[in-house]
Amino acid sequence: MLLLKLKHNNGIPLYNQITDQIKEMIERDVIKPGYKLPSTRTLADRLGVNRSTVYEAYQELWALGYIESRPGSYSFVRKRQELATGNTRKTKSIIPWNKQVSPASENIYRTLHLIRSEYTAESVPPNVINLSPLTMDKRLLPVEDFRKCMNKVLRESGTKVLDYGESNGYGKLRTYIANRLQLHSISVTADEVLITNGSQQGIDLILRLLTEPGSKIAVESPTYSLIIPLLKYFKLDVVSIPMLADGLDIDYLEKVLRKEKISLIYTIPNFQNPTGVTTDQVHRERLLGICEKHRVPIVEDGFEEEMKYFGNAVLPIKSMDKGGVVIYIGTFSKVLSPGIRIGWIAADKDCIERLAAIKRYSDLTSNAVVQGAIYEYCSRGYYDLHIKRMHRIFARRMKTAIKALRKYMPAGKVSWVEPAGGYLIWLKLENHKLDTLKLNKAGLRNGVLVSPGPYFFTGNKRGHEYFRICISTLNEEEIERGIRNLVKTIIQLEKS
Amino acid sequence: MLLLKLKHNNGIPLYNQITDQIKEMIERDVIKPGYKLPSTRTLADRLGVNRSTVYEAYQELWALGYIESRPGSYSFVRKRQELATGNTRKTKSIIPWNKQVSPASENIYRTLHLIRSEYTAESVPPNVINLSPLTMDKRLLPVEDFRKCMNKVLRESGTKVLDYGESNGYGKLRTYIANRLQLHSISVTADEVLITNGSQQGIDLILRLLTEPGSKIAVESPTYSLIIPLLKYFKLDVVSIPMLADGLDIDYLEKVLRKEKISLIYTIPNFQNPTGVTTDQVHRERLLGICEKHRVPIVEDGFEEEMKYFGNAVLPIKSMDKGGVVIYIGTFSKVLSPGIRIGWIAADKDCIERLAAIKRYSDLTSNAVVQGAIYEYCSRGYYDLHIKRMHRIFARRMKTAIKALRKYMPAGKVSWVEPAGGYLIWLKLENHKLDTLKLNKAGLRNGVLVSPGPYFFTGNKRGHEYFRICISTLNEEEIERGIRNLVKTIIQLEKS
Repeated sequence: MLLLKLKHNNGIPLYNQITDQIKEMIERDVIKPGYKLPSTRTLADRLGVNRSTVYEAYQELWALGYIESRPGSYSFVRKRQELATGNTRKTKSIIPWNKQVSPASENIYRTLHLIRSEYTAESVPPNVINLSPLTMDKRLLPVEDFRKCMNKVLRESGTKVLDYGESNGYGKLRTYIANRLQLHSISVTADEVLITNGSQQGIDLILRLLTEPGSKIAVESPTYSLIIPLLKYFKLDVVSIPMLADGLDIDYLEKVLRKEKISLIYTIPNFQNPTGVTTDQVHRERLLGICEKHRVPIVEDGFEEEMKYFGNAVLPIKSMDKGGVVIYIGTFSKVLSPGIRIGWIAADKDCIERLAAIKRYSDLTSNAVVQGAIYEYCSRGYYDLHIKRMHRIFARRMKTAIKALRKYMPAGKVSWVEPAGGYLIWLKLENHKLDTLKLNKAGLRNGVLVSPGPYFFTGNKRGHEYFRICISTLNEEEIERGIRNLVKTIIQLEKS
Repeated sequence: MLLLKLKHNNGIPLYNQITDQIKEMIERDVIKPGYKLPSTRTLADRLGVNRSTVYEAYQELWALGYIESRPGSYSFVRKRQELATGNTRKTKSIIPWNKQVSPASENIYRTLHLIRSEYTAESVPPNVINLSPLTMDKRLLPVEDFRKCMNKVLRESGTKVLDYGESNGYGKLRTYIANRLQLHSISVTADEVLITNGSQQGIDLILRLLTEPGSKIAVESPTYSLIIPLLKYFKLDVVSIPMLADGLDIDYLEKVLRKEKISLIYTIPNFQNPTGVTTDQVHRERLLGICEKHRVPIVEDGFEEEMKYFGNAVLPIKSMDKGGVVIYIGTFSKVLSPGIRIGWIAADKDCIERLAAIKRYSDLTSNAVVQGAIYEYCSRGYYDLHIKRMHRIFARRMKTAIKALRKYMPAGKVSWVEPAGGYLIWLKLENHKLDTLKLNKAGLRNGVLVSPGPYFFTGNKRGHEYFRICISTLNEEEIERGIRNLVKTIIQLEKS
């Protein structure tokens, strides 16, 4: 006999009280699987409630899996599958993920795992000057102006930006970017711009569009470290083009293009990551010329286009791209804010539309809320002012870095190329027996971290004699201190 | 003889004046390629300026490609590559993108192109009731509360959210989501949650992780239309599991799993898109049981988990997942805002970490700014209030829709399944000679649009007798009017 006690007017609906009490009886084994529940009519009469109240309670119990047949006919208690909780969950998944995932995915995971097990930004002790990360100086993030713009856009266009955005990106922002690219002599329309989640997604989309497993692609070596695992993931056949003092070895590239079918070439012509090299006009014209001749798309990563604070601006390759072979990548991450995750691709419309189709199926659109705020920020002139400020600050910081290197580095032991802008300096230990992968262990004791060369190389060259320093997060005092700590570290390494 | 006129104190730096004037002479052909420029010393003497001023001007001209050798030795005018402008750009790219991209990409592009050439949300005349799109009613977007939260987070944690975020997503938001999933009896920790750019990116990442070209995956047919082109793009071998009145045909699935190696099964157990079917507890237990037995990951898309406004909530499959085989996908897009692009995956930690690695290389992290604001919105209780409001409104709207269907639909000509919540109703024309792909042409004249069945089917079945209606963007008056217009359209179609 099912003994239920209902309280009227205690705020809990009657059907909930019935559900909860029966549920508890089942869970406490007071009534067992197979137990036949009274019909809805019988129970309703007995409790003095409406039949529909009992019906609703039974339906809930059925939905939750506590009773067996649909209400209406007789219902029986059933053994419900236990919930998975901290106690009942197996400590290990019964799926062996490391084996069940695609080998390429496992590879990318292991690579990341290796990198993570090293010093990450969070694990660095506060007294250490971290010359490694290419992120922004938090002290320079334009928080207050951005907040005002965000506030304005949510007040004035809130319903627009909280809804799905335009699939190629917020229209006004695409127009702004197209206009801004004109300042760098790049002539594109808003239709030839696709907004991406930072330049990293730009790279991913381009690789998805233009390659298949086994495709040959040409990249500078050394190059941007976060593209290297992606190339492996896509199972690409990487042709490494050596970086020389004035940019990628264009004679070498030309030979490659004459012999092989290359799907694309990825290049960073300004302040190349990691070497800091900026190619000159003649180099750019030659590169464009041979790629036009061989019909090979150039992916021009202009990630620091805006950081030409020393003047003498060489125009982007895209500025001369009459034949539509250059796919240009830009980003706000390295001059405004990486947390907003906004970058863009500017390319021939036929190419942009195909990239947009892949983006559509991979994440629909980019974040409309932040695109709206950034458009506001740019169109009100804050972006121009911010860039001017960044130029002023980093012209000083880079000069400080160069001065400190000249002053403190032991003559003949370390060499470097002075960059024409940006945040990066690439250094070389002249004693080839030293391995820059060992720099950070000693560096941590001396209060400095750098990015060892081998992170950036593709192909056979290991690059253990090189390392990269980055001044983007540090002020002048910190830069000077970091370099002094670095010198101390190198001297120790020489001796050991 | 190089005739330059410099103005002192006109605000333009002298080296800029020199650069500009020489540049203009070259562009106007006053001095021609091969012309030997005076040495820096000679020109400086002649102009009465510092030699370094001329040096700087020459360096700029060299960077811009107007002169040939590096300053220091003699410099010659060179023929600079013309800029690409509206006039000089070729009308068509010399790269045949349709042939040079991967065939899978071209396929995805063509599919999107076909869909776009139909009626899109923007092209619908204002008098037409659009029962097609599964987006949110703009009138219900919680703009003002969201704005307040965004403002607060930018004031208090601006530098944090404008910097690169944590790679698996904003920590506090992951904790909130893990806690909220407890309400649905899902037991996961913040480490088992990965923030994604909406659920679409969740699906993309999971396919990237678990499949390779040729992998067999099981999906319900009909299913979510935007996954279908993605399956083709990944070159997967799709095993279509027919949807029955109570969910996917589990006997059929069991036979498939006994015979074949399946990489994953994708299922939507609540308010399935497009059929609106919600499976019961017994169905869920059986599905979990056979997938555990065969070690096949279940991808459970809980895109409308929060929209159980009729009560009688069946718990997610993930709630019983003791063996860690369920990869659960959630999103804010269908209950809060699609423009914020925030969804999540909850799964076994080993699986989450591997998904996070792929996300890392495909777009680094999701937008930290909006994640911060959404955390604020949720933790201050706005989200709960908003869901309550949505429940109140959509319980009424869905009842209106069902009532209107019962009232106006001609008996015996159209059938449908009444959904247990959500936004979708799946209808069937009993006259099999009719094709729902023809509904919208007539519908547009009568002021109504729907989603024809064939959009949602995989495999051999075309589903031309089915169509989906969605009430998510419409109020009660609009829903009733839309259904009356629909009835008129179906009657016309019957007659023609």
